[in-house]
Amino acid sequence: MSGLLIERPLPHGGRLVERVVTDKKVARKMIQGCPTYEIKPTLHYETGVPVRNVYREIMSICYGFFSPVEGSMKQAEVERVLKERRLLNEWIFPYPLVFDISKDDLNKLGVTVGDRLCLTLKGKPFAILDIEEIYEIDPEELAYKTFGDPETNPEVVQQKFDKKHPGWVIYRSHQPYVLAGKYTIINEPKLKPPFDRFWFPPRKAREEFDKRGWRTVINHQTRNVPHVGHEFLMKCAAFTGDVEPCHGILVNAVIGVKRRGDYPDEAIVEGHEAVNKGGYIKPERHLVSIVLWDMRYGNPLESLLHGIIRQNMGCTHHMFGRDHAAVGEYYDKFATQILWTKGIPSFGFPAPPTEVPYGLKIRPQNMREFSYCPTCKEMAYSETCGHKREKLSGSFLRGMVAEGVQPPSIIMRPEVYKVVVKWWKKFGYPFCNEKYVINKEKELEVDLEDL
Amino acid sequence: MSGLLIERPLPHGGRLVERVVTDKKVARKMIQGCPTYEIKPTLHYETGVPVRNVYREIMSICYGFFSPVEGSMKQAEVERVLKERRLLNEWIFPYPLVFDISKDDLNKLGVTVGDRLCLTLKGKPFAILDIEEIYEIDPEELAYKTFGDPETNPEVVQQKFDKKHPGWVIYRSHQPYVLAGKYTIINEPKLKPPFDRFWFPPRKAREEFDKRGWRTVINHQTRNVPHVGHEFLMKCAAFTGDVEPCHGILVNAVIGVKRRGDYPDEAIVEGHEAVNKGGYIKPERHLVSIVLWDMRYGNPLESLLHGIIRQNMGCTHHMFGRDHAAVGEYYDKFATQILWTKGIPSFGFPAPPTEVPYGLKIRPQNMREFSYCPTCKEMAYSETCGHKREKLSGSFLRGMVAEGVQPPSIIMRPEVYKVVVKWWKKFGYPFCNEKYVINKEKELEVDLEDL
Repeated sequence: MSGLLIERPLPHGGRLVERVVTDKKVARKMIQGCPTYEIKPTLHYETGVPVRNVYREIMSICYGFFSPVEGSMKQAEVERVLKERRLLNEWIFPYPLVFDISKDDLNKLGVTVGDRLCLTLKGKPFAILDIEEIYEIDPEELAYKTFGDPETNPEVVQQKFDKKHPGWVIYRSHQPYVLAGKYTIINEPKLKPPFDRFWFPPRKAREEFDKRGWRTVINHQTRNVPHVGHEFLMKCAAFTGDVEPCHGILVNAVIGVKRRGDYPDEAIVEGHEAVNKGGYIKPERHLVSIVLWDMRYGNPLESLLHGIIRQNMGCTHHMFGRDHAAVGEYYDKFATQILWTKGIPSFGFPAPPTEVPYGLKIRPQNMREFSYCPTCKEMAYSETCGHKREKLSGSFLRGMVAEGVQPPSIIMRPEVYKVVVKWWKKFGYPFCNEKYVINKEKELEVDLEDL
Repeated sequence: MSGLLIERPLPHGGRLVERVVTDKKVARKMIQGCPTYEIKPTLHYETGVPVRNVYREIMSICYGFFSPVEGSMKQAEVERVLKERRLLNEWIFPYPLVFDISKDDLNKLGVTVGDRLCLTLKGKPFAILDIEEIYEIDPEELAYKTFGDPETNPEVVQQKFDKKHPGWVIYRSHQPYVLAGKYTIINEPKLKPPFDRFWFPPRKAREEFDKRGWRTVINHQTRNVPHVGHEFLMKCAAFTGDVEPCHGILVNAVIGVKRRGDYPDEAIVEGHEAVNKGGYIKPERHLVSIVLWDMRYGNPLESLLHGIIRQNMGCTHHMFGRDHAAVGEYYDKFATQILWTKGIPSFGFPAPPTEVPYGLKIRPQNMREFSYCPTCKEMAYSETCGHKREKLSGSFLRGMVAEGVQPPSIIMRPEVYKVVVKWWKKFGYPFCNEKYVINKEKELEVDLEDL
């Protein structure tokens, strides 16, 4: 075979983390006599509305999406991550991930280093946390340090972070004590429909790629119902590859706490599925999947996490657009593309993440914009089409949908719109509102059986 | 910069061949006292219609399109090319290229090894040939050996070559004596309009890429007026690249003897230009150029020559479709793609041409088909779209044009059709007929001044 052929990369860190005990007898033994603690959503430090649920981090860690991370980080690891975006084992990782707990809860629990804590979810045993360290954090400091600031990161940070940034709020809303140590899921949650059929943890994703004969796979990150611009981004970015276009397109939707005005997660996954069910991209070439994660909107930093997740899932390529995983203008519009083509020294990347030791193997495909061109009579690419085009604004499209107007099929496929309407009927509104967010954190995406 | 970035390849063989003397005084001195010989078109061995003009080979060699070839090949080199598709200097090359002459002409000239021959074109001094060897060939044997046969090349040759194959006819129509030796152009021909503005010999092409800031450039081989399917092939294949889509798209049209029913060369180059003038692909990202060559239609072998020409011009990528440079069913439809992904051992390629010693550096992008999808409402890619589509048949489109019907703009851009009509008016017919072919070989694409 040709040396130009790109092979599926190893998982980040060299091997998949898999910390799921499936033998119930063993699991019951493991939690015998353990103190238990019911996981609760992280509430906004000012408004009390849910902004995160650590159960999603535990899921993503134990199923290997975040390999090589194995648990709640120790203090030294959090510091290294914030300073160099490296774990203590040298592998790159962008965000601190911790199991945070209030002083009250810590006192009530009375656990100390060496204890095994049984975490319950919806009242059922879910995972264990083997406590290796307990330490205090300053959530506000953590929030600032996680995302950077214009003085420290002048290459890409344009604006000081504040409470208008949902990722900053997540860290600011952390409880001040951290129980650090490895997680192990001892009672596998069942994903609820429609999420169950999109659940492809890394090992299963890699097996699915094998089954489909996909050597090269490009990932499409999404937190949106796809309009035709997204469809074109997927179809066109997939023409990269090696000696032929990428064999597969993996849509990986980030499922977690929504912002007001986002589409509901249910509509997002089924909307993407409608693209392949409708034949716009053959189902044989297109797979919709999910990862549980409360988006931090860290643009270049988030893109690193996205690269890690999708490399772990077995992708060879990852498409990145303008304003990747961004909100507001905290970062340069092209911060992610800068990171992947030149690096961002102040974040610990004097070279792109694919070029540093202990870096990533997944390859970026940096893309510009698509919008409808009335002359070409198609969704046209900004770097190709020389005509005057209307910018395809997601907000405009959302406005149209909110008014009950079906967008023209050239902007949104009718099959996708049908999905929006289906969930609109169920939730009473096409977009997420506070009620959806609060209810979602009560019900979650999973159910658990008795152990 | 990232190690994933693809740099412009060196010319094939390590350096550009440039054998053009521009100082007229020097040139006059060089041909002082030389015997002269007027280049004539190669005529079909049965019908007498022109099938080739060696002046095009001399142009392509001396301007470096065929680097590292420097002249008419010696007998040992022809044999090595036919056996291993390697030159005597080891670099890969697919075809024998010789200056052939009849016994009569050779006798009249009376030249021997060591002589310098002045080749004239349209009665003007054009180039010199420093004779290093004179030998006899069997044109029929040469024709058979050049293209392969089902016994020797079972991987891709499906049918014995015969006089229905225009490339076979070219070699079969060669004169039986070869004057081998290096060519040097001593009187630069002037390309006639419209060809002059598309003349980018390798050095100039590379300079133009620099000027445009194109690091990655993908080549589109053409001998056709572009329909929208071709436009999509170009636009979509260009999404390959490295960390971002290819910066430039080079259209390189093969200009030479036409087959009946082909579009005239003038319509081909201006038709492609209309794509960028019309804004369907920005002129900043799209460059139309030509190479002088009488197509041999050797499918995988021709693709090697195409790779060599475009690598010499500075391209990083080359798109290859089904039936690349093919006519009839002599070769497997995917013979070119097989060559570039696995190699064809019987032609001397146990691995792809990018993986063998003295091989090519340009990277293949193997593409499938585009055709209009009424559901997607666009030119859809066979590996993406799951709907029922009509195959976009070039013959059907040509039939429509021949009937005077303007094809729908979704099939052929109106700006391109206008070009077809412009040359139709000039030549009296939208496609090449015998009159066009005979006339073209009289007038050629160039004029020469006195020396």
